[in-house]
Amino acid sequence: MPLSTPGAGQISVRVEFVSIEPAMRGWLTDTTNYAEPVAVGDVMRSLGVGEVIASNASGLAVGDIVLGWLGWQEFAVIDSAAVIRRVTEPDLPTSLALGVLGINGVTAYLALNDIGQPKPGESVLVTTAAGAVGSAAGQIAKRAGARVVGVAGGPVKVALCQSGFGFDAAVDYRDPAFEAALRAACPYGVDVFFDNTGGPISDTVYPLLNIEARVIVCGTAATASWEPWPQGARLERHILTKRLRVSGFVIFDHMARWEDAVQRLADLVREGGLAYREEVLEGLDVCPGAIAGLYRGENLGKRLVRL
Amino acid sequence: MPLSTPGAGQISVRVEFVSIEPAMRGWLTDTTNYAEPVAVGDVMRSLGVGEVIASNASGLAVGDIVLGWLGWQEFAVIDSAAVIRRVTEPDLPTSLALGVLGINGVTAYLALNDIGQPKPGESVLVTTAAGAVGSAAGQIAKRAGARVVGVAGGPVKVALCQSGFGFDAAVDYRDPAFEAALRAACPYGVDVFFDNTGGPISDTVYPLLNIEARVIVCGTAATASWEPWPQGARLERHILTKRLRVSGFVIFDHMARWEDAVQRLADLVREGGLAYREEVLEGLDVCPGAIAGLYRGENLGKRLVRL
Repeated sequence: MPLSTPGAGQISVRVEFVSIEPAMRGWLTDTTNYAEPVAVGDVMRSLGVGEVIASNASGLAVGDIVLGWLGWQEFAVIDSAAVIRRVTEPDLPTSLALGVLGINGVTAYLALNDIGQPKPGESVLVTTAAGAVGSAAGQIAKRAGARVVGVAGGPVKVALCQSGFGFDAAVDYRDPAFEAALRAACPYGVDVFFDNTGGPISDTVYPLLNIEARVIVCGTAATASWEPWPQGARLERHILTKRLRVSGFVIFDHMARWEDAVQRLADLVREGGLAYREEVLEGLDVCPGAIAGLYRGENLGKRLVRL
Repeated sequence: MPLSTPGAGQISVRVEFVSIEPAMRGWLTDTTNYAEPVAVGDVMRSLGVGEVIASNASGLAVGDIVLGWLGWQEFAVIDSAAVIRRVTEPDLPTSLALGVLGINGVTAYLALNDIGQPKPGESVLVTTAAGAVGSAAGQIAKRAGARVVGVAGGPVKVALCQSGFGFDAAVDYRDPAFEAALRAACPYGVDVFFDNTGGPISDTVYPLLNIEARVIVCGTAATASWEPWPQGARLERHILTKRLRVSGFVIFDHMARWEDAVQRLADLVREGGLAYREEVLEGLDVCPGAIAGLYRGENLGKRLVRL
């Protein structure tokens, strides 16, 4: 592959890791949601980290490690505007800039604090609880003094919620007795619902919500396709009678606070107060199947691809 | 009916009007929602206005007109705590204390301003738009500089939204072409959705909501029974991708602000800036059927019963 020289305001990057996100499925549909669709023939949009190998942009030098919109490719020539940040934690693994110190950790931190605002003694329920966003959200809620219950798929992830991430309880949504198990795991109801799945899982949670509970709608991983638009339990009666506050959260509205959030998360990681899991796959070829696998729940930890 | 003497802290009231509310249907179910159920054999819980005919409570004198929890009865002996306010607008009809200057107007005013916060030029959509809450909400939104679209049932109510209440557009949800008509009536989408119905009507509105729209869930009049719990279009994808804020509103959380809201609403009525409709039925016997009729949409304006 011939390497083009960076133009004015551009850099060339040797890509080390690219990120696999559930949201990528939405970027590949024909309908605009919060991001423009990726067109057929374009490089797949993706966050990545890599090393600057040529720079024609001020503030970015050869040898810098950058997080940005590098795409699914081994070498990227990008505008400096596609760089989210320089990675400035040489004591921590570079790959964390795509996970616990990246889009997943920053999303968990900002969404939980902006919308959830858990208070000491409150009950927080997190879905995709063993995943990159959910595990960070639950641990940050624990540090805020909340009781944290996780929902995850399968016994391995459920065990990880408790032994790896220190949640107070965790429940397997694949268990035929899920509804009763969830109720038993939430003896005080739920004050903050950090929802990464929607779908039948969240239908089970709404009856457990307390008066004035806050719901963070952060992902819809339970639903692989919105054509045709699926049906579910009506929410409006819960929202009305319990005076819920239900809010959507998309990290791209909050980029100005990314760097500050990363610094706080990095300190937590250094203190041993924020555990994380990564699952590193190898080579560009695995990328497309790696998205589909997220929807099957086959990953254990933040899914990355090393190039 | 023998009249008991008011005990310490109590008053006797000759009831003039009682109110008919959609929420009453919920109070008659076995399940607690935001209010305790009314038990079989109890006097039906109801707001009413009437004249104090005997008082054993400080601050309340014979001849005062009071708004309070008088129940469906001609004479009420109640604790002074069941009084919401003394009606102090002798220049305006007493019955307004149950409608535009009562639970409906105060609900519209506080919910719209607390949650909706319409800005000049924004688009506000109101359901049950010809009703007591909806008509007040739409007019208050108009005064805030918003473009207001109403949804109502049948041509009479639709016409009333425009000619009586000054909305910019109104659409009949019973029209087979409702979905297309609503889209045409909302060329700029919807920034504030003041929802009193939920159900299939709100399912039609969610696709029209703009980024960062606010949804006030103020009533669920489209759904007469929640057993079995009905299904509808899933909301989480709209809430996520459009970063919606969806909040339930129950007026009983806000009683401390009732009096201030009434004063502001009364000034609007006096200025001719807040139109209202009342439908006055006669006699206690009609009360039970009058609730059911609300769910059939047969009322035109605030439904009251004169005793």
